Amino acid sequence: MTGFELDEKFLRSRRHAKWNMYKPDVIPAWVAEMDFALADPIRKAVAALSDQMDLGYPLREGGVAENAVGTAFSRRMKSLFGWDTDPKLVQPVADLVQGTFAPIMAFSEKGDGIVLQTPAYPPFYEAINTLARQLVANPLRDGADRYEIDFDALEASIGPRTRMVMLCNPQNPTGRVFSRAELERIGKIALAHDMIVVSDEIHSDLVHPGHEHIPFGSLSPELGARTITITSATKSFNIPGTRCAVLHFGTQELKDKFHERIPRRILGAPSIVGIDATIAAWDDSQPWLDEVLAYLTANRDHLARRVAADLPGVTFHKPEATYMAWLNCSGLKLDKPAQQFFLEEAKVGMSAGETFDPAYAHHARLNFATSRSILDEMIDRMAAAVARRGRSEAAA
Amino acid sequence: MTGFELDEKFLRSRRHAKWNMYKPDVIPAWVAEMDFALADPIRKAVAALSDQMDLGYPLREGGVAENAVGTAFSRRMKSLFGWDTDPKLVQPVADLVQGTFAPIMAFSEKGDGIVLQTPAYPPFYEAINTLARQLVANPLRDGADRYEIDFDALEASIGPRTRMVMLCNPQNPTGRVFSRAELERIGKIALAHDMIVVSDEIHSDLVHPGHEHIPFGSLSPELGARTITITSATKSFNIPGTRCAVLHFGTQELKDKFHERIPRRILGAPSIVGIDATIAAWDDSQPWLDEVLAYLTANRDHLARRVAADLPGVTFHKPEATYMAWLNCSGLKLDKPAQQFFLEEAKVGMSAGETFDPAYAHHARLNFATSRSILDEMIDRMAAAVARRGRSEAAA
Repeated sequence: MTGFELDEKFLRSRRHAKWNMYKPDVIPAWVAEMDFALADPIRKAVAALSDQMDLGYPLREGGVAENAVGTAFSRRMKSLFGWDTDPKLVQPVADLVQGTFAPIMAFSEKGDGIVLQTPAYPPFYEAINTLARQLVANPLRDGADRYEIDFDALEASIGPRTRMVMLCNPQNPTGRVFSRAELERIGKIALAHDMIVVSDEIHSDLVHPGHEHIPFGSLSPELGARTITITSATKSFNIPGTRCAVLHFGTQELKDKFHERIPRRILGAPSIVGIDATIAAWDDSQPWLDEVLAYLTANRDHLARRVAADLPGVTFHKPEATYMAWLNCSGLKLDKPAQQFFLEEAKVGMSAGETFDPAYAHHARLNFATSRSILDEMIDRMAAAVARRGRSEAAA
Repeated sequence: MTGFELDEKFLRSRRHAKWNMYKPDVIPAWVAEMDFALADPIRKAVAALSDQMDLGYPLREGGVAENAVGTAFSRRMKSLFGWDTDPKLVQPVADLVQGTFAPIMAFSEKGDGIVLQTPAYPPFYEAINTLARQLVANPLRDGADRYEIDFDALEASIGPRTRMVMLCNPQNPTGRVFSRAELERIGKIALAHDMIVVSDEIHSDLVHPGHEHIPFGSLSPELGARTITITSATKSFNIPGTRCAVLHFGTQELKDKFHERIPRRILGAPSIVGIDATIAAWDDSQPWLDEVLAYLTANRDHLARRVAADLPGVTFHKPEATYMAWLNCSGLKLDKPAQQFFLEEAKVGMSAGETFDPAYAHHARLNFATSRSILDEMIDRMAAAVARRGRSEAAA
């Protein structure tokens, strides 16, 4: 037992989506949220605002409060990755999806192509489709022990109107942390074809031991000048409802070009709660995250052992980052999507593989950021469902 | 003494802009924020989020949380103004300035004209200028006991590219609550010239006795179909730091047309704190606002008596709404802007008239939403500064 595990009764007592979207007999394992108590510095920061009734026009560090998110970002990038960034090149926004729409609108035209490694987080497709851009899918290859970028296919898919790479690193849902060699190869392609790179690095502080996150914008000045990094404390520190994220531009020129089409004020601004919670997370909550990450790594390894032992027909590559397992259920030879099978038969509510890529209905994404006992209950239910199915097939 | 007055020591202990922008020897009377305690329902709603650590992906009323702001808006419009609105035609956003930029970008092109009654809230100018639209200024006339719209000048100023009226009602900084006859006349002009009306009604629940706010979008179905109403609980309920506002479109067609250019997700989303605070304000905090408004009306009348008695050379029309007095200091014949004079000589920090209109440097906007004792201290300081100046001029 740790200090941050939360029990099911408490989890069900709250009003957020994760524990309320499915019926009460279902254990949810879908949306990227952790069943853990908040870090103390974050709780204190939020409570102070309500205790002090300090919800007026906010100032921080002697200026517009949202600018303080930029300085906190720069401190964070330096301390985690040794990356020097300029807080003035940061644009705080309310959420990360906004942060994917905005660069697409700023740096491409309708009909332009946008590269995306697939399977991918559904809002990336939404952005590309809503904005009438062309998806240039670059399917990840299922390798021996990890998913890998198919560089030959990538090069072949780029046309004269392919303007942008939408990179997600660490990758969601596969959990890949791309190596320096892989990132540099993407960079070479981006330079050769004059493409902008939008690098979603929201999972970059959820990297398991043995892997290293390298910010794409830090690879070289040439690449930095064409890279927009988007990130947020909301995923790793479990505060998505506070709505605060950042876009970082590699150069002033890139930021100016962005604002020519996307005026700063069309983006709105994060609330003071989002601002203070983000700063408390990045500046003061790393000890909490260290503990949480150790727990997540142990959960990941436990899940791998149990899937191997108790879920015949299901496999997954251990994610190198994130608290998501991208379960390959094709060995079960189901006649329905895997997510639907486990929801109906095991009352475990994962994310449907087909929402990440229509070709992946035999996959489901399992969120293992929960207490070990709840995780075991999920695996028990899934194992029982698979065993029942095996018996009924044998009897048929 | 009421339950919501806050003393200077507490006000200075917080981190918001109002009491921290000027030096500590200055009493601030600028930004539109009240020196009053929050309504209990709002405090409880915010505290519950932090107590429960309920900052995950939020659900309210069984769906995406921000939609609940739309239903709260509709309940509010019905209860305050008898106006029937459709929650589905509401787009929640993070702040009202975003809500002025977005319709301009959606419904006009660069170079198009936008009518604005002046003097006006500075961000309206910022929106028109940043977006390279043309300001079609419609200066308010200083009438016998109120500012009035110059309709002849308005008609004369409209050209073929005048696409939009940016209406602020109740008007900031003059405090006018436009009458039905005035609004209908604006409506007739909008129809005749096929203009969209963006109606900023953020002060509509801060109307003093004897005046009535009429939502522009409620005038007629024809006008509703070309009206975007923007409002928020942040001004009246003193929670601007929570960042939540709404755009209401008169018809689905108007909303669809808006989203053709401004995809919903480029706007971001309000935080759960902004959402819950707004709902608590609109649904449950009217008793608090009733008391506050009575206090504000009394402060307004007290200010009028004291200005007449103690500030020779200063006049103002009693605002019909808002907690702002638009002080005309031209009788002082100052050789510097009025705001600067009172800041330097009285240590009272008002908003500078020239930021609302370059022609109004002899005006200053005084925020009287503070305890009576602080208000009196401000007037005492201002009266002493005027008296000192009178003596030194007499001696010269």
